[in-house]
Amino acid sequence: MNIIDIIVKKKDKKELSKEEIDYVVKEYVKGNIEDYQMSSLLMAITINELSFDEILYLTDAMINSGEKLDLSSINDIIVDKHSTGGVGDKTSLVVLPLVASCNVKIAKMSGRGLGFTGGTIDKLESIKGFKTKLKFKQFIKQVNNINLSLISQTENLVPADKKIYALRDVTGTTDCIGLIASSIMSKKIASSSDKILLDVKVGKGAFLKDIKTAEKLADIMVKIGKKYNKETIALITNMNYPLGYTIGNALEVKEAIDTLQNKGEERFINLCIVLATYMVSLGKNISIDDAYEEVITNFNNKKGYKKLLEFISAQDGDINSIEINKKNIKVRSKSNGYLTDIDTMGLALLCKDLGAGRTKISDSINYKVGIKFSKKVCDKVKIGETIMTVYTDKNIDSDELLKYFKITEKNINEPKIIYKIKK
Amino acid sequence: MNIIDIIVKKKDKKELSKEEIDYVVKEYVKGNIEDYQMSSLLMAITINELSFDEILYLTDAMINSGEKLDLSSINDIIVDKHSTGGVGDKTSLVVLPLVASCNVKIAKMSGRGLGFTGGTIDKLESIKGFKTKLKFKQFIKQVNNINLSLISQTENLVPADKKIYALRDVTGTTDCIGLIASSIMSKKIASSSDKILLDVKVGKGAFLKDIKTAEKLADIMVKIGKKYNKETIALITNMNYPLGYTIGNALEVKEAIDTLQNKGEERFINLCIVLATYMVSLGKNISIDDAYEEVITNFNNKKGYKKLLEFISAQDGDINSIEINKKNIKVRSKSNGYLTDIDTMGLALLCKDLGAGRTKISDSINYKVGIKFSKKVCDKVKIGETIMTVYTDKNIDSDELLKYFKITEKNINEPKIIYKIKK
Repeated sequence: MNIIDIIVKKKDKKELSKEEIDYVVKEYVKGNIEDYQMSSLLMAITINELSFDEILYLTDAMINSGEKLDLSSINDIIVDKHSTGGVGDKTSLVVLPLVASCNVKIAKMSGRGLGFTGGTIDKLESIKGFKTKLKFKQFIKQVNNINLSLISQTENLVPADKKIYALRDVTGTTDCIGLIASSIMSKKIASSSDKILLDVKVGKGAFLKDIKTAEKLADIMVKIGKKYNKETIALITNMNYPLGYTIGNALEVKEAIDTLQNKGEERFINLCIVLATYMVSLGKNISIDDAYEEVITNFNNKKGYKKLLEFISAQDGDINSIEINKKNIKVRSKSNGYLTDIDTMGLALLCKDLGAGRTKISDSINYKVGIKFSKKVCDKVKIGETIMTVYTDKNIDSDELLKYFKITEKNINEPKIIYKIKK
Repeated sequence: MNIIDIIVKKKDKKELSKEEIDYVVKEYVKGNIEDYQMSSLLMAITINELSFDEILYLTDAMINSGEKLDLSSINDIIVDKHSTGGVGDKTSLVVLPLVASCNVKIAKMSGRGLGFTGGTIDKLESIKGFKTKLKFKQFIKQVNNINLSLISQTENLVPADKKIYALRDVTGTTDCIGLIASSIMSKKIASSSDKILLDVKVGKGAFLKDIKTAEKLADIMVKIGKKYNKETIALITNMNYPLGYTIGNALEVKEAIDTLQNKGEERFINLCIVLATYMVSLGKNISIDDAYEEVITNFNNKKGYKKLLEFISAQDGDINSIEINKKNIKVRSKSNGYLTDIDTMGLALLCKDLGAGRTKISDSINYKVGIKFSKKVCDKVKIGETIMTVYTDKNIDSDELLKYFKITEKNINEPKIIYKIKK
C-alpha cells in the first residue's frame, strides 16, 4: 500500500477501504507517513467528505491506535457525556454531580481546552489541590464509592486523534463532519462507558454555526455509537449566547456551585436539568418523565450540590480556595431598553486575550480572569445598570466594552434552549 | 496575513488575491510556511482549481522567487521550446540544431528528468565530456556565435517551483492544470526568451491522458505567455506510442544524430520538422510555409546535422564516445500480422527499472541502457523478426517482453502526429 495512491484516490472522490484507512492511521502514528502527506489527505477528505463506512473505519482505526479504558470492575451502567463546546460551557460541572446524585455512575475522562476558555479539566484545576490525575485503581474506587470521578485524558487514549487533531488545527481542515465525528466518538468508545449523551452546540458561540450541519454531525455520531452497541443520544442545543452568567475558569466553577444551590441563571439551569434527565434515563433505563422527577428532586433538595462537594473533596480540591481576580471593570449601560444580542464570540476572544484560554497547547491559563454578566438576553436594562464585570488586571476602557451588547427598545422572543433530540 | 485563513479560503472555493498568493510563495520559500500547510493548500487548489487570475498571480510570484536570466546581450529574437514530456522524447536534440541552422537563436535552459527516462540534460550528459554547466558569459557567447546553447537550469531560476514541485510529487497534487501551467510558464518567462513553442504531449505515454485536458493546459499557457508579451504557440501532439525508435539516454542521443542525417523514424522526423517550422516562423517572423521551406532545406542538406555536431563540440562533447550497453536481449515475434499497439508506459517503466530514469532526484542514471525498436506501430511483423532490442546486463526472459506488444491480423489507421495547434 502506498500513501500517494491513497491520497489520489480520495482526491478523485473515491471511497477508501478499511485496509487503506487502517494503513494511514497506523503508519501516520508510527511516523512512516509524513505530516505533509497526511495534511494533503486530510484536505482531500475535508473537501470530498467521507462516507459513513469510511467514518466507521477511521473511528475504529483511531480507537485501535491506543488502549481502551478498562471499566469492567464497575458493575453498573456507566454513562458518558460530551459537549462539542461553547462559550461559558460549564454544564458538565453541574450535570455530572446531579446525575451521580441520582445513583448513575460516571467514570469520565475530559480534555484540556484549546481556544477561548479552558476545558472542564482546566476549570477544575482552578480549585486549589484538585487532582485531575488519579491512579487507575483510585479512579475506579471513587466511581464505585461516590458514582463520579472525572480525570484528564490518559496519554494513550486514541493517540492517533491527538496527532491528527494537532495537524488539522494548523492546516485548515478542522470543519469536516466526518473527521469531527470520528475524533469525538473514537475517544468516547475508547473511554468504555456503556451509554453516551452528546451535547451538540450550535450558534454564534460554537464552531457549528447552523442547525443543519449540527444535525448531520449528531446523526453520524449517534449512528457510530449504535454500531459499537452503545446507546447514544444527542441534544442539539442553542449556543448563540454565553451559557449562564460567567466565562472564565474559576468564575465558571463558582457559578456551577451556585447553580446547584439554585442560585443560577434560569435558562442555564433548564439546560442542565434536561441534560441530566437524559443521562439518568440512559443510566437507569427509565422513562424521561421518571428521570426528570429524580433529577428535579435532587436539584431542589441540593443532593446534586452535595455530590459536587463530595466529588471535589474526593479529588483533594478545596472548594473555599477558588480565587477570582480582585481588580475588575464594570460595564454600565448608556441606554434604556432590552438586551437583545450579545457578541458571544467577541467576548470569548476577549476572555482568551485576558488569559482565560490557550492559543497553543503549551500556553498556561490564568484561572482568575474572566467575565460575569449581570444581565442576560431578553433582560430589561436601565441607564447606569451594570451589564457585565470584567475580572482582569488589564486596563480596558469600560465604554469600549459596550460594543459587545445590543440594547434595543423592543425585546426579542425568549431563545430556545434545545433545538432537537437525536437518538 | 495568515496561512490558515488562506487555506480555508481556497477550501471554501474562494478566489485568492495577488497579495495572498505572493505571501504564500514568499513565505514558503523562506520556510515560514510549513510543508504540511503548503500541501494542504496544494490539495485544496488541486480539487477546487485556480482561476486564470490566480494562475497569473502564482506564475508571477514564482518568477519573482528567483532571478531572471539576462539575455539582453543577444541582439536577436530568441525562441524557447518546452515539451511536457513523453516516452522517448528526444525532439529537442533534433529540433533545436535544425532551428539554429536556420539562423534562429536559442539560449535554452533545460531540466533533469524524474521518472521513466532522463531529461534533455541527462541525455546530453551521456556524451563524454559534454558540459551542461557553462559560465554565463560563455553561454551568451556561444549563442551569439553558433545560435545555440543548452545548459542545465541554474539553481536560482524559480526556486519556488523546485520546492513546490518536490512537495507536489509526494502529496498526490501533480495533476492540477493551474499548478502545471504556472510551473512550466514561470520557468519559461524567467528564462527570458522572446517567444515560446510548447509541445503539449497527450496519450498513454504522457501524464496528460486526454486531448480536452491537454487543450485546457495549452490554452492557459498560451494566454500566460501573451500576458508577458511573449508570443507563445502550443502544439498538442500524440504521445500514445514511443517517439522514434529508442528509449534511453545514449540511445536517444544516437538516434537524434541519425535522425538529422535522415536515418530516422518517419513519424518522428515529421514531428520534428513541424516543431522546427513553428520555431523558425516565430524566430524570423515569417509565414509557416516560408519557415517550412527553410527547415526542410536544412534538414535535407544536413545543415541541421552539422549544427548538432558544432553544438556538441562547442560544449566539449565527444560525439564518438557515446556508449551503448554491449549485452542486449532481442525480442522476436511469435506471430505474423501488424504491430497495432504498444504498452508505452509499461516500456517506460521497464526502462526506468533498467536504470535509464530516476525515482528520486538524487538517483544516478545508467546512460547506456534502454530499448531500441525495430518495428513501429502499423508495421508488418513476421514470425521470428526482431521487434525490439533491450540493452541491459540484467537477465530478462525475452518472451516475457512480448507482452508489451499487440500484433493483430488487421492493421489500424496511421496515427495522427499533431492533434491541434493553439496560438
